[in-house]
Amino acid sequence: MKRFVKLTRIDRALHLFFEQVQIEPISSETVPLTTSVARILAEDVVARFDVPGFSRSAVDGYALKAQDTIGASSTNPLVLDVIGVVEIGWPAKTALSQHQSVYIDTGAVLPNGANAVIMAEYTESIGNNKIEIYRALTPGENVSFRGEDVKKGERILLRGTVLRPQDVGVLSALGYSQVKVVRRPKIAILSTGNELIDAGEKWEKGKIIDTNRPILISMVKELGGEPIDLGIAKDEFKEIQSKVVYGLNVSDMVLVSGGTSVGAKDLMPTVINSLKKPGILVHGLCMKPGKPTALAAAGNQPIVLLPGFPVAAMVSFNAVVIPIVLKLCGTNSLPFWNRVVHAKMTRRIPSSLGNKTFTRVLVKYMKGKFVAEPLRTSGSGVISSMIRANGLVAIPENKEGLEAGEEVEVILLRPLKART
Amino acid sequence: MKRFVKLTRIDRALHLFFEQVQIEPISSETVPLTTSVARILAEDVVARFDVPGFSRSAVDGYALKAQDTIGASSTNPLVLDVIGVVEIGWPAKTALSQHQSVYIDTGAVLPNGANAVIMAEYTESIGNNKIEIYRALTPGENVSFRGEDVKKGERILLRGTVLRPQDVGVLSALGYSQVKVVRRPKIAILSTGNELIDAGEKWEKGKIIDTNRPILISMVKELGGEPIDLGIAKDEFKEIQSKVVYGLNVSDMVLVSGGTSVGAKDLMPTVINSLKKPGILVHGLCMKPGKPTALAAAGNQPIVLLPGFPVAAMVSFNAVVIPIVLKLCGTNSLPFWNRVVHAKMTRRIPSSLGNKTFTRVLVKYMKGKFVAEPLRTSGSGVISSMIRANGLVAIPENKEGLEAGEEVEVILLRPLKART
Repeated sequence: MKRFVKLTRIDRALHLFFEQVQIEPISSETVPLTTSVARILAEDVVARFDVPGFSRSAVDGYALKAQDTIGASSTNPLVLDVIGVVEIGWPAKTALSQHQSVYIDTGAVLPNGANAVIMAEYTESIGNNKIEIYRALTPGENVSFRGEDVKKGERILLRGTVLRPQDVGVLSALGYSQVKVVRRPKIAILSTGNELIDAGEKWEKGKIIDTNRPILISMVKELGGEPIDLGIAKDEFKEIQSKVVYGLNVSDMVLVSGGTSVGAKDLMPTVINSLKKPGILVHGLCMKPGKPTALAAAGNQPIVLLPGFPVAAMVSFNAVVIPIVLKLCGTNSLPFWNRVVHAKMTRRIPSSLGNKTFTRVLVKYMKGKFVAEPLRTSGSGVISSMIRANGLVAIPENKEGLEAGEEVEVILLRPLKART
Repeated sequence: MKRFVKLTRIDRALHLFFEQVQIEPISSETVPLTTSVARILAEDVVARFDVPGFSRSAVDGYALKAQDTIGASSTNPLVLDVIGVVEIGWPAKTALSQHQSVYIDTGAVLPNGANAVIMAEYTESIGNNKIEIYRALTPGENVSFRGEDVKKGERILLRGTVLRPQDVGVLSALGYSQVKVVRRPKIAILSTGNELIDAGEKWEKGKIIDTNRPILISMVKELGGEPIDLGIAKDEFKEIQSKVVYGLNVSDMVLVSGGTSVGAKDLMPTVINSLKKPGILVHGLCMKPGKPTALAAAGNQPIVLLPGFPVAAMVSFNAVVIPIVLKLCGTNSLPFWNRVVHAKMTRRIPSSLGNKTFTRVLVKYMKGKFVAEPLRTSGSGVISSMIRANGLVAIPENKEGLEAGEEVEVILLRPLKART
């Protein structure tokens, strides 16, 4: 039996990969603003005008000159003329002279000559188009000035930002009805193995339903990518080669699972090395599960070989596929939520020095704190453990296990229930 | 000026609403498994067969009878006959008698008569279809038994689960090529206001670009819903009424923003009360921002009136729209990530007793801990503050502000940068 001669740390493997493969960031496309949430912004956004676009009232009341109100109080009301009304949505037709005011809606244009707005409750109409005012105002009071929110020319959103609803709001306030975003990365996915069939196909003893493709397709979708399903290849050089070549032609990146180890049927490395250089760059990582992972490229197009065991494939996807996809997209933030919580281990778990070990845990909220209970699992093929667990704890290469009570970062596999 | 006579606590308002409105859970639909990630499962899933479907080898090696290996060691090797090979993907053709073994691939069917597998590295071929073995095995060693992962009849996923990639994997392992999920809730969205125009429309002084619709459409999409854009209605009874009626006809729920307060132009409550009973149920919440929010219904169809200020509309969406959408979908988990981190306040912030106050903060990771810095913001209309902030801190109704150093839960507005 052949073995991995040398295993490489995950961080070192990615470093080697990025050193040797000049990832070309994928192109952008213009989409309607209302479909842009969770997409990655492809250009810096500079405000094309001031927001608000005019100085406006922040309350319902009377626009006036603050200097006209000096000394006003409930015991010493001052009288102003009311020369008109400014309704929201319309320009202000009048300009104020001394001792004049206009009734103004919240959000309406502040008329020329006015520099403050008195709330209606500090005034009383005394007929004859006159009001008494019961408070002195400082200039600017109850006014939102032009450009107060965003100034024209301000760089308000940066390329690489994963758009959130509030970003969409700011873009619309700046007049954008469409926006330039990074095209969804196309990621082709192939499973290999004589034993594999698809769910829905006729089952015979010895056959196994392929779970990796549905899992990887879902992970790619969740990451904002466009999965391309290359199906299942038998363990035959020509069949695997032609499917990988097709995948490279229609995608930005190819993921292959199964056939990636060093056994007799593990043809994948040979196939990859038969394609455009550089081929396999790193094969065999210091991680558990996920050891048979390989990073490769055909020209500058990334190819990742993932293990056949579904749990190992998921762990490898998180460890090495996501960083490569982010680089392709020209961003360093994930289009989904921060998935880390801090928790205390409920009991000791062992791990082997030199490997980054990913342990499945069940995170619970107890007495105001998160605790992580390691699950007893037998091997990375046990997919049901991935739904019994709701988190993974990574034990670093330089540690032999974790102690009971130790504080750890848990990568959540599933959102925790809302607690409010 | 009219005022809200009485304000209601958020929790009390939702309680009143659910007491009086019999929400009808929306129907289900069947979708291909590979498109089901992030959808809500509409039925319990019971395993239709055992996984794995047959007992199989967990290693490359020789299947044998454990009792034949008693006493074997490197100094005392035992000899077994090799009577065949079981390749992965094929049934096992042979049955073992005493002192017999077959070569077996990882994942291949364990032949009848075998109960353990010795790894190839603890054996040596000595020719003549014979091997020496250097280790004793216990029954079951290196075997994954039929049903070990999932047992037939086991209730493996529950209705209401938001499907994650690993759930998709389990469903495929159980033979599902399609799955029944909750239909996407259709949520119609209307903005009202004479001052509003859409991004891309010609701007005139006094007009404001509607930001609420793009924000709410994005929030609905993010929640897994299907937004229906009802456009902008002028502040005219008939126009608002006809758009809300249309919205009710084509959706599961209607959201309206603007015109929801108690001023002269705030026609919305009158419109809603002109429709099917019960109309407005709660109007005016103890929250800042978000006070003018109202909960209403036409028959059992929910209508939420959201404030016109975008920040207030977003806060209200989180506080009252999400719980109603979850009820419509028959689930209690959000289709997106846990968005709460614990942080220490960097300085004191005041709030008023009796209101639930949502303060915008900037969360940073400092020396291994999260800290939350309150942002100085002037009013809920300042949308740029929603992109300068990355979190909201809710100050409960019974507290007057938060102290510097106090530990708080922060609702994240944006994923934090990966720290690994």
